[in-house]
Amino acid sequence: MTTNEKALELHKEWNGKIDTTSKCRVATREDLSIAYTPGVAEPCKVIAEDPGAAYQYTIKANTVAVVSDGSAVLGLGNIGPYAAMPVMEGKAVLFKEFGGVNAFPICLDTQDTEEIIRTVVNIAPAFGGINLEDISAPRCFEIERRLKELLDIPVFHDDQHGTAIVVLAGIINALKVVKKTKEECHIVVNGAGSAGVAITKLLLTYGFQDVVMCDKSGILSKSSPDLNWMQKEMMEVTNLSGKTGTLADALKGADIFIGVSAPNIVTSEMVASMNHDSILFAMANPVPEIMPDVAKAAGAKVVGTGRSDFPNQVNNVVAFPGIFKGALEGRAKQITEEMKLAAADAIASLVSPEDLNENNILPEAFDPRVADVVSNAIKSLI
Amino acid sequence: MTTNEKALELHKEWNGKIDTTSKCRVATREDLSIAYTPGVAEPCKVIAEDPGAAYQYTIKANTVAVVSDGSAVLGLGNIGPYAAMPVMEGKAVLFKEFGGVNAFPICLDTQDTEEIIRTVVNIAPAFGGINLEDISAPRCFEIERRLKELLDIPVFHDDQHGTAIVVLAGIINALKVVKKTKEECHIVVNGAGSAGVAITKLLLTYGFQDVVMCDKSGILSKSSPDLNWMQKEMMEVTNLSGKTGTLADALKGADIFIGVSAPNIVTSEMVASMNHDSILFAMANPVPEIMPDVAKAAGAKVVGTGRSDFPNQVNNVVAFPGIFKGALEGRAKQITEEMKLAAADAIASLVSPEDLNENNILPEAFDPRVADVVSNAIKSLI
Repeated sequence: MTTNEKALELHKEWNGKIDTTSKCRVATREDLSIAYTPGVAEPCKVIAEDPGAAYQYTIKANTVAVVSDGSAVLGLGNIGPYAAMPVMEGKAVLFKEFGGVNAFPICLDTQDTEEIIRTVVNIAPAFGGINLEDISAPRCFEIERRLKELLDIPVFHDDQHGTAIVVLAGIINALKVVKKTKEECHIVVNGAGSAGVAITKLLLTYGFQDVVMCDKSGILSKSSPDLNWMQKEMMEVTNLSGKTGTLADALKGADIFIGVSAPNIVTSEMVASMNHDSILFAMANPVPEIMPDVAKAAGAKVVGTGRSDFPNQVNNVVAFPGIFKGALEGRAKQITEEMKLAAADAIASLVSPEDLNENNILPEAFDPRVADVVSNAIKSLI
Repeated sequence: MTTNEKALELHKEWNGKIDTTSKCRVATREDLSIAYTPGVAEPCKVIAEDPGAAYQYTIKANTVAVVSDGSAVLGLGNIGPYAAMPVMEGKAVLFKEFGGVNAFPICLDTQDTEEIIRTVVNIAPAFGGINLEDISAPRCFEIERRLKELLDIPVFHDDQHGTAIVVLAGIINALKVVKKTKEECHIVVNGAGSAGVAITKLLLTYGFQDVVMCDKSGILSKSSPDLNWMQKEMMEVTNLSGKTGTLADALKGADIFIGVSAPNIVTSEMVASMNHDSILFAMANPVPEIMPDVAKAAGAKVVGTGRSDFPNQVNNVVAFPGIFKGALEGRAKQITEEMKLAAADAIASLVSPEDLNENNILPEAFDPRVADVVSNAIKSLI
C-alpha cells in the first residue's frame, strides 16, 4: 500500500483526527455541581468583573483557532472549507503533539475578506491565538493586517511567517557553511504569493540588502504589469536597481535562490550561472524547483527542500508550535518582527557548530528540544 | 469549603475544562506524512469531489458547536462571551461525558442577530450540529429559525428544547401517577421567555389542549401590552378563552403548574386553589417558585424542581447528549418535533411502572442507559 492509500484508509478509520476531551470528572452529582451548575457561576462572575480572568479560568489560556477558507490548500488550490478540514485537523494535531497547544479547526464557508475578518473577530473570545492557514494572496495580507489591529491576541499566518522563519533559520546556518555574510549576498525569491512575500520581508528585516522577487513572468520590478497591492509595496524594498528579465537573468551571480513556486523550473545552467558556493532552497512540493543532486552537480553548495527524504528539510513544524506555545504562555498580544527573528535564531542555534555542515543546517522536525527553545525565545521578548 | 469556593478553585486549577487531543500518532516521519503532508491531500481530494464525504473523513461526523453570545447565562443574565465560557466549556464536557459527542465552545463577541447568524453559518463546515445556548429571547427564536433554514445540520437551542423535552417526559410520568389524561388537564406555564415558549409549544404538540402562559405582569392574552412577536404568536394557540388576571387567578382549578420564572412566587394558597392531585414543576434556580415541602403540604401530588437535592430533578443532561448523539450517528439534518416527542417518551420510559411514584418520575442524570435510549429514539425517526 502506498503512503497515499494508507493515508486515505487511516483518515477514514480516524473519522476526524482530533477529539475534545474533558479535564474534569463528572461521575457524581457533586462533580456536576462543580463543573456545571451551580458552581460554574463562580468563575463566570469573576470573568464578568474582569475579562482578563478568562486566561485563568477558561481554555483561552492554551487554545488556538486554525482558521482557513480553503482558498489555497497545499498544492491543491481553492478546494473550499470542507475539503480543507483534513489539513486543518492535521495542523491541530501538530499544535498539540509538538507544542502541547490545544487547537481547533475553523473552516469558513465564505471567501469574502470582510466576512472572514468579522467572523474571526466574533469567535475570538474562546481563543488565545489565531493561526491563519491556506488563505490565498493577496487577501491573506489584508485579513492578517486587519485582524492584528482588531484583536488583542496573536494572529499569525503560518504559510507566511512560519515558512519565513524556518527559511531564515536555514539561511543563517547555510551562510556559516559557505562563509558569506548577509551584507554581500544577492538573493532571488521565486514566487510572489504569501510565502514569497513573507520570506522576502523577513530576510530584509534580518539585514539582507539585495533581494529580487520573481514570478511566472520573470523578475518583478516597479514596471511589471498586474502587480497586486502587496507586490507593489514589495517593489519599494526589493530590486532597487530595477532589473528586468527572466528567472535565469535574475540568478546570474546570485548567492541564494529561494523557491516557493513550481516543479523543475530551475536548470543546471541557471545554477552554474550563480555565484560560487550558492545556496538553494527549492521548496515546491512534492517536486522541488530543482532536484538536490542536480543542483549540487551544477555547483550548489547547500540545498534545502520541503521534503523529508532529502537533507535540510524546511518544515514549519519546527516553528509554529513553539511560537504559539511561547506566545500563549507569555500572554503575548502580538507576534512581533523581533519575535520572528528570535525564533529563527533559536531554531538555527539547535544545530551545534560540530554538527553543522552542508547537509545539516536545520534541526529535525522531531528534535524534542525545538518547541521549548522557540517558545523561550518568544517569551524572552514579551 | 463550600461548593462554590471549590468550583472557583478547581476552575483555576483546570485552566479550561476541555482539551483537544490527537487521535493519530505523529512520532515518526512516516506518521507525519500520513496525518499531514503529503498524505492528507488524499482525503482532501475526495471531499473536494463530494462534500458529503466530510462525514467519513473529518470531525464533522461527531462534533457539535456550543454557541452562545453570553446574553442570558444561567441566572446571571447578560454577562457577555468571556464570562459565558465556563458554562459553554461545561456543556462541552457534558456532551462528551454523557453522550460521547465532541463539542467545542464558540462564544460570540457580538449580540447582533444578523451577525450571529452569519458567523454560525460561516463556521458550520467543521461541525455536525449546532447547540445554541444561553441566548436571550426573543432573539434566540429568530436565530434558531433562520439557522435551521440556512444549514443542513441540526440546530438545537437547548434552553428551549432540551428543557421542554425533559419537562414533557416528567409530565408524561406524572400524569400516570395522578391518573389524569392530557385531554382533561389545564396547564399554567409561568415565564414567557425561551424555555416557557418552547415548553408550551411542545406540550401543545404532544396533545395538551389548554395552556395559559403567565409572566411578571400576570396572565398573557391577546390584549396584553408589550408582547414580543413570539409571544403574540403564542397567543394564537394558548389562553383560547381569553383569561386575564394574575398568576393566582390562572392557577385556580389548574392541574399543572410549570415555572421557569423566579423564586418563591407561588404561595400555599395558590396551590390549594388548584385542582386535586396537582403537579408542579418549579424550576427557578437555585430557589424554586415554591419549595417542594410547602407545595406538598398545600395539596400538590407531584413536585419537580431544577435541583439535585430534591426528588424529580428536571435536568437537561438526560436529553441533549443523547439527542445529538442520535442526530449525528443518523446524520439527521434537523431535530424535528417528532424527534422531540420521541425523546421525551424515551426518557419517560426509563422509569419502570414498578419504580414510578410521585417522588420518582424522571431517570437520574447518571442513569447509564439514558443517552443510548434517547439516541435510538432519535435515530428511529431519521
